[in-house]
Amino acid sequence: MKITVVKVGGGIVEDEKSLNALLDKFAKIEGLKVLVHGGGRSATKVAEQLGIAQTMIGGRRITDAETLKVVTMVYAGLVNKNIVAQLQARGVNALGLTGADMNVIVSHKRPIKQVKMEDGSVQPVDYGFVGDIDRVNADLLADLIAKGVVPVMSPIGHDCQGHLLNTNADTIASTVAVALAKHFEVTLMFCFEKRGVLRNPDDDNSVIPEIVASDFARLVEDGVVSGGMLPKLENSFEAIRQGVREVIITHADQIDHPDEGTKLKG
Amino acid sequence: MKITVVKVGGGIVEDEKSLNALLDKFAKIEGLKVLVHGGGRSATKVAEQLGIAQTMIGGRRITDAETLKVVTMVYAGLVNKNIVAQLQARGVNALGLTGADMNVIVSHKRPIKQVKMEDGSVQPVDYGFVGDIDRVNADLLADLIAKGVVPVMSPIGHDCQGHLLNTNADTIASTVAVALAKHFEVTLMFCFEKRGVLRNPDDDNSVIPEIVASDFARLVEDGVVSGGMLPKLENSFEAIRQGVREVIITHADQIDHPDEGTKLKG
Repeated sequence: MKITVVKVGGGIVEDEKSLNALLDKFAKIEGLKVLVHGGGRSATKVAEQLGIAQTMIGGRRITDAETLKVVTMVYAGLVNKNIVAQLQARGVNALGLTGADMNVIVSHKRPIKQVKMEDGSVQPVDYGFVGDIDRVNADLLADLIAKGVVPVMSPIGHDCQGHLLNTNADTIASTVAVALAKHFEVTLMFCFEKRGVLRNPDDDNSVIPEIVASDFARLVEDGVVSGGMLPKLENSFEAIRQGVREVIITHADQIDHPDEGTKLKG
Repeated sequence: MKITVVKVGGGIVEDEKSLNALLDKFAKIEGLKVLVHGGGRSATKVAEQLGIAQTMIGGRRITDAETLKVVTMVYAGLVNKNIVAQLQARGVNALGLTGADMNVIVSHKRPIKQVKMEDGSVQPVDYGFVGDIDRVNADLLADLIAKGVVPVMSPIGHDCQGHLLNTNADTIASTVAVALAKHFEVTLMFCFEKRGVLRNPDDDNSVIPEIVASDFARLVEDGVVSGGMLPKLENSFEAIRQGVREVIITHADQIDHPDEGTKLKG
C-alpha cells in the first residue's frame, strides 16, 4: 500500500489561514498519510511571553529545562492538538503523537558538540534537551495507519529514561518515512517556500521536475543545489537509499498534486 | 480481560515527587490499564504567567479562547507528555491522548446554563469552550489496549467541528470506563485525598470497605455521603449501571492495592 509522509514547517501551521489551506489539501491526499509539523515561531512567542530567554545557534534552539517545557506545551499541545481537531473536522481520523507515545521515536540527548560559530571560531555547544534519533518503532503505528488512522507527529522524541527531547522535524519525517518503508510504499514530501528545486533561483518557473541520485553530485558542483537545500537533499537521498520510494520537494499549496514539485529518485 | 481505569487529580500529577510515587504504583497495577489525569493548578499558573485572567464558577473554569490555548498546552502538552515519558521509562507503553485523537471523545460545547451563585442568586453562565460528552469511540482504543498500549488521557474533548473543548476529567474517566465495558471487565478507580469513603470524616481509619447500590440512598440520608463526594458516587453508580464492574474510591498511595479503599458495586 502507498503512503505519503508530509513534512510542513512551523510558518504554515502557525497561521490560521495558511493552516486551514494546508489541511484542506492534506485531507485531499489520497490513500494513507502522515503529517509531521514544526512550530518554532509559536514556541519563541510563548517563551518570550513567559520571560524565558531563547538562544539559537545555527538555526537550532538551545533547549534548557524551561525551554523544553515550552516546546512540549507548544509542539505537543497547542499546535499538534489544534491540527488534530481541524483534521477530524475534515473527516481525517488524526492521532497526535510525540516520539514518547507508544515509544515511537527513541533518541538520546545530543552530546556537547564543537560548532563553527558565525564569527568563524569553533566552540563547544551544549544544545540541552535536544534529541538525536536512535530508532523508530513503527509496528504499532503501521497497524493503526492500515486501519485508517492518520498520525500527526510533533517534533519531540524521548530517551526512554523519562526525558522528552526537542527534535528536528525534518529528521523525524525522514526517519519515520524510512521506518514505514518496511510496511508501505513511501512517498516523503517536504513542503518548502518555493515550488520545488529551482534551476534558476530567480525564476520560480524553473522547477527541476526530477533529480535522480546519480545526477545529484553534478547539480551540487554546478551550484544549482546549495545552502539550506543541500542537507535537505542529502537527507532525502539517504532516505531513498534506505527504502523510501521517492521524495518530493514542493510548495505547501500543491501537496495534493504529487506530480508538481521536484521528485527525487534513487 | 480485566482493565483498571485510574483517574488522578491535578494536585498529584503536578508535583514531581507525588507524580513519581503515583507512576511507580500505576506501573505495578497488573493487567490492562488506562490513566486519566487533570492539571488545573498548572493551567492556572501558566495562565497567570501569560497574564490571562482566570474565572472559576462552582469549581469549573470559564474557558475563553485564550484559556483554551492554555489548557491545551498544559493538559495535552506539558502534563500529558511528561507522564507518557515517565511511564515509558518504567516500561509502560503509554500513549497520550485528548478526545480529538482518533475521535475518541465526541462532545458539544456546553450551552449557557442557569447557575446558582455563591451569593444565592441564579445567573446565566457561559462556560466558554467547555465540553459535555456525547459519546466515546473506544473500538480503536480497545484494539490498542489489547496490544499492551496504556492510554493516558488528558481532560480535553472535541466537537468534530474543529474545536477542542475543556472537559471534566472525572466525567472522561467514567465515560471512557463505560465505553470500555463493551470490551473488558472494567474497574474504575478514583484517587482521592482520603483512603476511601469515611464513615466518620474525622477518623481516617473509618473507611467503608464496600457500598452496594441499594445501600447508597441510606448513606446519603444518614449524611455519611455529602458534599463533593455525593456527585462522585452518583456518577460511579451510574457507571456501574452502564456496565462498569466496580468503582474504587481510594488514595493515590494505594492504587496498586485494589483491596484497599471503598468498593462500589451494583
